[in-house]
Amino acid sequence: VAIEKETPENERPETFLRESDGAAASMGDEHRSSLRARFERMIRETQDEVCAAIEAADGGGKFKEDVWSRPGGGGGISRVLQDGGVWEKAGVNVSVVYGMMPPEAYRAAKADAGSSSVKPGPIPFFAAGISSVLHPKNPFAPTLHFNYRYFETDAPKDAPGAPRQWWFGGGTDFTPAYIFEEDVKHFHTVQKQACDKFDHSFYPRFKKWCDDYFLITHRGERRGLGGIFFDDLNNYDQEMLLAFSTECAKSVVPAYIPVIERRKNTPFTEKNKAWQQLRRGRYVEFNLVYDRGTTFGLKTGGRIESILVSLPLTARWEYDHKPEDGSEEWKLLDACINPKEWI
Amino acid sequence: VAIEKETPENERPETFLRESDGAAASMGDEHRSSLRARFERMIRETQDEVCAAIEAADGGGKFKEDVWSRPGGGGGISRVLQDGGVWEKAGVNVSVVYGMMPPEAYRAAKADAGSSSVKPGPIPFFAAGISSVLHPKNPFAPTLHFNYRYFETDAPKDAPGAPRQWWFGGGTDFTPAYIFEEDVKHFHTVQKQACDKFDHSFYPRFKKWCDDYFLITHRGERRGLGGIFFDDLNNYDQEMLLAFSTECAKSVVPAYIPVIERRKNTPFTEKNKAWQQLRRGRYVEFNLVYDRGTTFGLKTGGRIESILVSLPLTARWEYDHKPEDGSEEWKLLDACINPKEWI
Repeated sequence: VAIEKETPENERPETFLRESDGAAASMGDEHRSSLRARFERMIRETQDEVCAAIEAADGGGKFKEDVWSRPGGGGGISRVLQDGGVWEKAGVNVSVVYGMMPPEAYRAAKADAGSSSVKPGPIPFFAAGISSVLHPKNPFAPTLHFNYRYFETDAPKDAPGAPRQWWFGGGTDFTPAYIFEEDVKHFHTVQKQACDKFDHSFYPRFKKWCDDYFLITHRGERRGLGGIFFDDLNNYDQEMLLAFSTECAKSVVPAYIPVIERRKNTPFTEKNKAWQQLRRGRYVEFNLVYDRGTTFGLKTGGRIESILVSLPLTARWEYDHKPEDGSEEWKLLDACINPKEWI
Repeated sequence: VAIEKETPENERPETFLRESDGAAASMGDEHRSSLRARFERMIRETQDEVCAAIEAADGGGKFKEDVWSRPGGGGGISRVLQDGGVWEKAGVNVSVVYGMMPPEAYRAAKADAGSSSVKPGPIPFFAAGISSVLHPKNPFAPTLHFNYRYFETDAPKDAPGAPRQWWFGGGTDFTPAYIFEEDVKHFHTVQKQACDKFDHSFYPRFKKWCDDYFLITHRGERRGLGGIFFDDLNNYDQEMLLAFSTECAKSVVPAYIPVIERRKNTPFTEKNKAWQQLRRGRYVEFNLVYDRGTTFGLKTGGRIESILVSLPLTARWEYDHKPEDGSEEWKLLDACINPKEWI
C-alpha cells in the first residue's frame, strides 16, 4: 500500500471526493448522496462541532488549520490547538484517501473472495475518517481519543464483476491519569446510550473490544480506561452503521466537555503532574508500537505531522517507577491492568 | 523466539553462564577461556568502567543496580543513574541470554545451511551484550548510545554435526541537539582510531552503516550524528573481532567524557531546552518504531524496564515544528537529514 505525497492547499474545498464519487455540484442526487459523500459530510461537520466546543472550553487557544490534497483525489484538514488555556495539545483531523491495496488484503477482508478463479490485481480503495486526540494540561483532566472511519473497495480492474467491499470502524476512549468515578461513569454512560439506540449488544461488545485493543502488550496494561472500539464492521445494514457512526461522533462533546469543565481548574502538585507525564509516556508507547492507524500511516507515507499529532506535547519515562500500594496512582494503574465495568 | 521470565537476585553472580559454558571454577582452561566467557568478562568490565566514569563526571548521581537471572541460565545487571548532576537518565546494562530460535532464522543467517537434507528443529542460541544510553540534562551536552554483543548458536539437537554459527554486532553513536564541530570531530576520530587498529575499511564502512541504520524512515532524518555500527559480522577471524569489539567498548569513555566535561555547565535558554526535548522525541520515535533490539525485546518478553531505559526521562512533540533557516537548530536537523563526513 502506498499513498501519494500531499500538496498544501490555501482553502478548504467543498469536498475531497473525486468527481466520479459525487464531487461535482452538477451531479445527480444518486451520486451526491453516495455513502462516501455522506460520510465525508458527517466527519467534516463533526470536526467543526468538536473544534468549536474545544475552543469554547479552552477560553483562549485557537486551532491552527492545515489543508492538503493529493494529485489523484483525496486530501484532508488537520486542526491543532497547542499550548491553550486548558489543552496542551488538541488535534482534530479529517482525511479522505484513495489508494491501492494488494489483493491479499482484500481476500483477508472477505473470506469467500478467494473462491473465484479470477486472480485479481491490486484493488483500488477509498477511506475517509476523523481522528482526534485531546491532551489537557491539568493532570486531573482526562485525555480523549476518538476516530470514526469508513472504508470501501472498488472492484479490481481485471474483475469488474467482483463485489465491492465496505466496512466501518471507530471508537471513543478515555484516558485520565487519576480516577474520578463520576467522570468515568458519565463517559461510559454516554457511550452506552449511543450504542443502545442501535443494538443492545453493541456496548458490551465494543467496550470489551476497546479494552482488548488498547493493550500495551509488553506491559500488560491498557493505556487508559477504555470506552468503545469496533473495526471491520459490515454485517449490519449499511444505513444503520452510518447512523450509528454518526451518533457516536455526535456523542463526543456531551461525553467529554462536562468532565473537562469539572476538572480543568483543579489545583494540583508537581507529583500529580509527573504522574500524568508518566501516563503520557505510556500513551506514546501504545501509539508508536501498537496503534494500527499510526503504524500503518508511518509505513505508507501518510502526512507525518497529522499522524503524530496524537503524541502528547510532553511525556516522561522513569526507570522502574511503581506507585505506592493503595495510592491514587496505584488505583489508576490497577484499573489499566484489570479493566472494570463502570456502569 | 521466547525468553523465560526473569527473577530478581540480591547479588551479582561471578558469571551468568551455564556450567557447561564454563561457569564452574573447577572447569579446565578450555572452557573458562571460551569466547562466551571472555565476552561476558569484557562487557562486565566495560560496565564497571563506564559507570565509574559517569559517576565521576556527574559529581553527585549514583547508579542504582538491579541484578536478575533466568531459570535455565543467563541473566543481567541493569544500572541506572536518574536525575543526577549532569545526566537526567543514564542506563548501562549487561545481559546474557539463552534461548531457542526458529530454524528459519538460522538458515537466514547462514546461506548454505539449507543445503543439508536434515530438517532441523529449533536452534538453541546464546547472546551476550552490553547496551547503554546516556541522556544529559544540558542541551549542549550530547546523548551517547553504545551496544556490543556476541551471538552464538548451538547445533540443533536433531543435527548434532551441523556447524555452530556466531557473529558480533555493535556500535557507538553520538546524538547532540546542537553541533559543536570540535565535539563531533573528536567523537568520530576516536571511533576511527579504534577501527584503524584492525582494518582500514572498517571506519568508512561502519560509519555509513550507522548513518543507514539510525534513520527515522518516516521523517527522512537520522536520530543523530552517527558513529559506527556493524551487525552479523563473522567473516573475519573470531579472535580479531573479539579484540575489535573490546577496543570499541574501551573507546567509549575517551570518546564521550571529554565532550561532556566541555559542555556540562554551558549556560542555556528555555528555547535550547525545548529543542533538546524535541530531539529527544525523535529518539523515542526511532527506538520504539525501528530499533531492532528494542522491538525484538518488547516482542519476546525481555525485561521491559531494562529495554526501555533507553528512553529519555522527558521528551516533547510540537505540531509541525520547523527550525528557522540557518539557525543552530536548523544546522543540526540538516546534518541529520544529510549525513556529513566529520573527519
